[in-house]
Amino acid sequence: MRAIVIHAAKDLRIEDRESPPLGPGQVRVAIAAGGICGSDLHYFNHGGFGAVRLKEPMILGHEVSGTITELGTGVEGFSVGDLVAVSPSRPCGTCEQCLRGLPNHCENMRFYGSAMPFPHIQGAFRDVLVADASQCVKADGLSPAEAAMAEPLSVCLHATRRAGDVLGKRVLITGSGPIGTLAILAARAAGATEIVVTDLSDNALAFAAKAGADRTINMQTEPEGLAPYQAGKGTFDVHYECAGVPPALAAGIAALRPRGIVLQLGLGGDMMVPVQSITAKEIDLRGSFRFHEEFAAAIKLMQSGAIDVKPLISHTYPVEEAVAAFEMASDRDRAMKAQIVFADAAQ
Amino acid sequence: MRAIVIHAAKDLRIEDRESPPLGPGQVRVAIAAGGICGSDLHYFNHGGFGAVRLKEPMILGHEVSGTITELGTGVEGFSVGDLVAVSPSRPCGTCEQCLRGLPNHCENMRFYGSAMPFPHIQGAFRDVLVADASQCVKADGLSPAEAAMAEPLSVCLHATRRAGDVLGKRVLITGSGPIGTLAILAARAAGATEIVVTDLSDNALAFAAKAGADRTINMQTEPEGLAPYQAGKGTFDVHYECAGVPPALAAGIAALRPRGIVLQLGLGGDMMVPVQSITAKEIDLRGSFRFHEEFAAAIKLMQSGAIDVKPLISHTYPVEEAVAAFEMASDRDRAMKAQIVFADAAQ
Amino acid sequence: MRAIVIHAAKDLRIEDRESPPLGPGQVRVAIAAGGICGSDLHYFNHGGFGAVRLKEPMILGHEVSGTITELGTGVEGFSVGDLVAVSPSRPCGTCEQCLRGLPNHCENMRFYGSAMPFPHIQGAFRDVLVADASQCVKADGLSPAEAAMAEPLSVCLHATRRAGDVLGKRVLITGSGPIGTLAILAARAAGATEIVVTDLSDNALAFAAKAGADRTINMQTEPEGLAPYQAGKGTFDVHYECAGVPPALAAGIAALRPRGIVLQLGLGGDMMVPVQSITAKEIDLRGSFRFHEEFAAAIKLMQSGAIDVKPLISHTYPVEEAVAAFEMASDRDRAMKAQIVFADAAQ
Amino acid sequence: MRAIVIHAAKDLRIEDRESPPLGPGQVRVAIAAGGICGSDLHYFNHGGFGAVRLKEPMILGHEVSGTITELGTGVEGFSVGDLVAVSPSRPCGTCEQCLRGLPNHCENMRFYGSAMPFPHIQGAFRDVLVADASQCVKADGLSPAEAAMAEPLSVCLHATRRAGDVLGKRVLITGSGPIGTLAILAARAAGATEIVVTDLSDNALAFAAKAGADRTINMQTEPEGLAPYQAGKGTFDVHYECAGVPPALAAGIAALRPRGIVLQLGLGGDMMVPVQSITAKEIDLRGSFRFHEEFAAAIKLMQSGAIDVKPLISHTYPVEEAVAAFEMASDRDRAMKAQIVFADAAQ
Repeated sequence: MRAIVIHAAKDLRIEDRESPPLGPGQVRVAIAAGGICGSDLHYFNHGGFGAVRLKEPMILGHEVSGTITELGTGVEGFSVGDLVAVSPSRPCGTCEQCLRGLPNHCENMRFYGSAMPFPHIQGAFRDVLVADASQCVKADGLSPAEAAMAEPLSVCLHATRRAGDVLGKRVLITGSGPIGTLAILAARAAGATEIVVTDLSDNALAFAAKAGADRTINMQTEPEGLAPYQAGKGTFDVHYECAGVPPALAAGIAALRPRGIVLQLGLGGDMMVPVQSITAKEIDLRGSFRFHEEFAAAIKLMQSGAIDVKPLISHTYPVEEAVAAFEMASDRDRAMKAQIVFADAAQ
Repeated sequence: MRAIVIHAAKDLRIEDRESPPLGPGQVRVAIAAGGICGSDLHYFNHGGFGAVRLKEPMILGHEVSGTITELGTGVEGFSVGDLVAVSPSRPCGTCEQCLRGLPNHCENMRFYGSAMPFPHIQGAFRDVLVADASQCVKADGLSPAEAAMAEPLSVCLHATRRAGDVLGKRVLITGSGPIGTLAILAARAAGATEIVVTDLSDNALAFAAKAGADRTINMQTEPEGLAPYQAGKGTFDVHYECAGVPPALAAGIAALRPRGIVLQLGLGGDMMVPVQSITAKEIDLRGSFRFHEEFAAAIKLMQSGAIDVKPLISHTYPVEEAVAAFEMASDRDRAMKAQIVFADAAQ
Repeated sequence: MRAIVIHAAKDLRIEDRESPPLGPGQVRVAIAAGGICGSDLHYFNHGGFGAVRLKEPMILGHEVSGTITELGTGVEGFSVGDLVAVSPSRPCGTCEQCLRGLPNHCENMRFYGSAMPFPHIQGAFRDVLVADASQCVKADGLSPAEAAMAEPLSVCLHATRRAGDVLGKRVLITGSGPIGTLAILAARAAGATEIVVTDLSDNALAFAAKAGADRTINMQTEPEGLAPYQAGKGTFDVHYECAGVPPALAAGIAALRPRGIVLQLGLGGDMMVPVQSITAKEIDLRGSFRFHEEFAAAIKLMQSGAIDVKPLISHTYPVEEAVAAFEMASDRDRAMKAQIVFADAAQ
Repeated sequence: MRAIVIHAAKDLRIEDRESPPLGPGQVRVAIAAGGICGSDLHYFNHGGFGAVRLKEPMILGHEVSGTITELGTGVEGFSVGDLVAVSPSRPCGTCEQCLRGLPNHCENMRFYGSAMPFPHIQGAFRDVLVADASQCVKADGLSPAEAAMAEPLSVCLHATRRAGDVLGKRVLITGSGPIGTLAILAARAAGATEIVVTDLSDNALAFAAKAGADRTINMQTEPEGLAPYQAGKGTFDVHYECAGVPPALAAGIAALRPRGIVLQLGLGGDMMVPVQSITAKEIDLRGSFRFHEEFAAAIKLMQSGAIDVKPLISHTYPVEEAVAAFEMASDRDRAMKAQIVFADAAQ
């Protein structure tokens, strides 16, 4: 089978790999669609991020869907031919964090396509994937492309839950990449009544508008765009910070009302933060990291029509053009979510 | 102007009243539509409920919309001709509860159409209402009938917020009257992924289905319908109890999973409750009473299309036929929400 | 070794049992002290409670401390001679509830001295107990009698956490048995500033006063004692309901202020509950069941002196007088916590 | 009467002022003791902080107690001669924040000794203060010096409540000045079982030890002191950040376990923050600002003996030596809380 393997920055190869054996409780999945995530792009463009660096070749990819082609012994509830979304998250289920109900903080996490432990955790951009049945969620009624959006959507659903509730609330989203635009959909699905989105790219903001933002602001061309929301004690109840840059976080804190909540999704290393305002307004800056049970919810919300991710899938490439796909995905002025189509989808 | 006045059980009259003077900060509203609520029906059918009894004639009604015909001095943000929903809730803004941020528990509440204090608080089923501008929310784009649904919808939004969050959650609703069916819409708007509704009336459940319930169960004809959900440690995350009867509460508690939440909306006096199960499963039984800032959110959620209340408005009567309206509203096997249309709407 | 075995109501025997083998990760404990709990008394007096009935002989007891006499392979952090409190709670660590962080709701719980599954889970009133090291907490500086109080104290700490916070809050406790009086200590340790306790027994209330209640009310002789607290919208922030009887729950709900919290600890089957008041005041009635990580905290709070349980240990009997101990423990007008002393303590 | 007036950095004068008239609902208080706060020191040493600058002479001081010498009309519950703590917080009770239950964020706050609005809000370091009775809490059984600690203690109680609960939790406190050491007392009173405190000054840490810290670490002489707590996923549940410097915040975030909470009390302008760790560990960085109902709770907790602030009052000066008092209070290597004694205390 083919796999998309990163060897070093800018060295992405399509290689032949052995399809792994099928164990009990597992399913064999012919991968259909795979979305390129920001972390994939970090490996592709820079060979890693922060302290996380590539030390050996690694198959990329963790946003995938596919069709079940074989069932391991003991698997129930699935049939050959089922379209499934496959969660890349594999917590151990036995460590302290798992037993506290925080599997996204598992001490032995094996998340697809991560260079963090060594040997690296190989990813899911491959023709054939063997996964635990418990990682799979049936995606009847969705296209493979939609099903492959379950993973980043889960990230945004998880963040939304971290807010407590957003029903009837006013929401600011800074950073309108794939996570920011999916946050629009998640916040809307949870009942947010006003959503304002900022970015520096008109292309990104055009997708935000398609996703249903009530207002978009290009902070480059309209640097005072948030000023009316920052007047007095501030306006927004919740701020999804998806840009990972200091000015975005600072602008949001200034625009939140007292006791407002920042959901920090954007990574971005050490950042200058207006801590004095956090104190004086009793802002609640909450990190949000990955997801767990939200994965199945993501599928359901797409199936019911409460969330429609299709407008965000901007580009699709066959496996052979993986490098072109990664280059397009890296271009914020042209792409939103770029996906790769595998063998199965072509059948 | 005409007003719909209850004198005693079954003694409902259309009477002529003086239109009140307009003070500063107030608006004069030509009432367009008024929905009949369960508490209106209690006055109509029984002269009160529990310790709350009619002691003098009282204008009924607290679910109203209308058109502004005159602005008091100092009113901003409204124009003559605006369609508005009028909140019946008038907390004092100075008592201990108001200053704790709990205006729905105001110690000096003057809620339209309530026999609780004496003299009673006169209601809003009248051709002309003078209200504080702060009670009004503009309802552009909605019909008067929809705008008049803001009040009961607010009750359900408030309850939903009391749940913390319902995004991706499994929800049970017992009692499919106007509050139960609006709870379906509220829970869905907040992201619930599975909604099961029970009642004893097929008519009520037909409206639940129209409102988007995933499954309806008539507990009379299908008394074991909840049994699969009660297996093991239970299934649902949240239970909106809108029936106010002991079997509904007990069935829901049995069907909730550990740490599940009951939102108790149904009144119903003293009730037999399976307290042992509440303890053993660590159920959280939370009362939910009226609303406050959810009123404006209700309008916004209808305006955006996130919530569509139209399928729940089953009957409409002109003022002259108020008695027929109240009788129809009392008939759970035929009606859902019955509304009265006032002069303005007929213009 | 000797064990205290219940065969049927009022048929309690001291029997010889084989000491079990020691497995890896386990410790052998010479039991020193064992407190008699309300559930032990239900087996002793009635052969069970509710649907839980004795079907075979069962060793009673789940509030125990003792001295380690042998270490299984792989045990770290303990030495022979250590005084330990032994948690009777043994969740499976693999079921859905355990992985949600709710081990107290484990679907395969094996809690000492429980007739719930069959075969029953044998208890800890025995000369020698083999326990997992993970059940044990070192109790240096405490007496065996104090260490044996860790279990019921944990129940009250867990309930206190279920309240969110009680710092600076006004607290009502109904039912001044061992759980009610330990709730006084737990609430005080968490910063409650006013604690009022009710019961029908002067003996029970005398212990409440010793535990630091600001005021005690005998509802038999002073039936209007709570009336001042029930005036207006009510007074208390939190109500620990430890009596398990309808008048206690009703009185507390009437005395809570809007959004007040009832922590329901008392079991008591189906109960008449003023649900209308729960709705109208938006009361939050929360079940609280057992404990988990609070067990270690209980030991620490006793070690630091923040909690002193000694005044609540009213009676101590040697194993041979177990029946007398159970009879005394059943007498609310004479006893508070009665404990049994095992061989080790006599050494 | 005498007042302690700041004119500019290092220009502190004792001046004669007119005693203000007594209005209805007010009391006249002969000030007994006044504690010097960090913000007083900022005015004294720098003429302000951040954007807050002195623009006219201002009486300093907001941590005061005194004896009532006269009652305005309508005042109930107080008598001449009562020792009271006077809250410096005077929210308007009518703005949006007040009505949300957030009086500490009042849009029209008049907090004693604040240069923020202009004209400045004059402070309470004066022989005679006229205050609203609602600002006063009777402090029977406390010394004036203790009563004057109610204000900074309230800040720490408020922060503790912002944590939700700390019962049985492990707590880190960075910065062992008056707020950090009072946080020790507050956390302990709320049930924290382990408290580790860091600072750069041995003097400050000696006071932390007196206040009951389980361990103190001088980060200057023991820079790796927190390393064991930072191992793996981290250790502490709650971090009170009272230093307001980037290394303290960063060290705490590294030492918190996933979902740990930082209570940000230290101001400190813009700071470099390890945002990536906040995201990856889902840390919750919560600002905490001033207090409201905690003021009365502070008095009660001191009265009951749950909190003993006396060991933290390191220095006492008469009014005449105010400059010396401010200089001592500025010296972290010698002082903890320095207080000024007014006429009344000398009587």
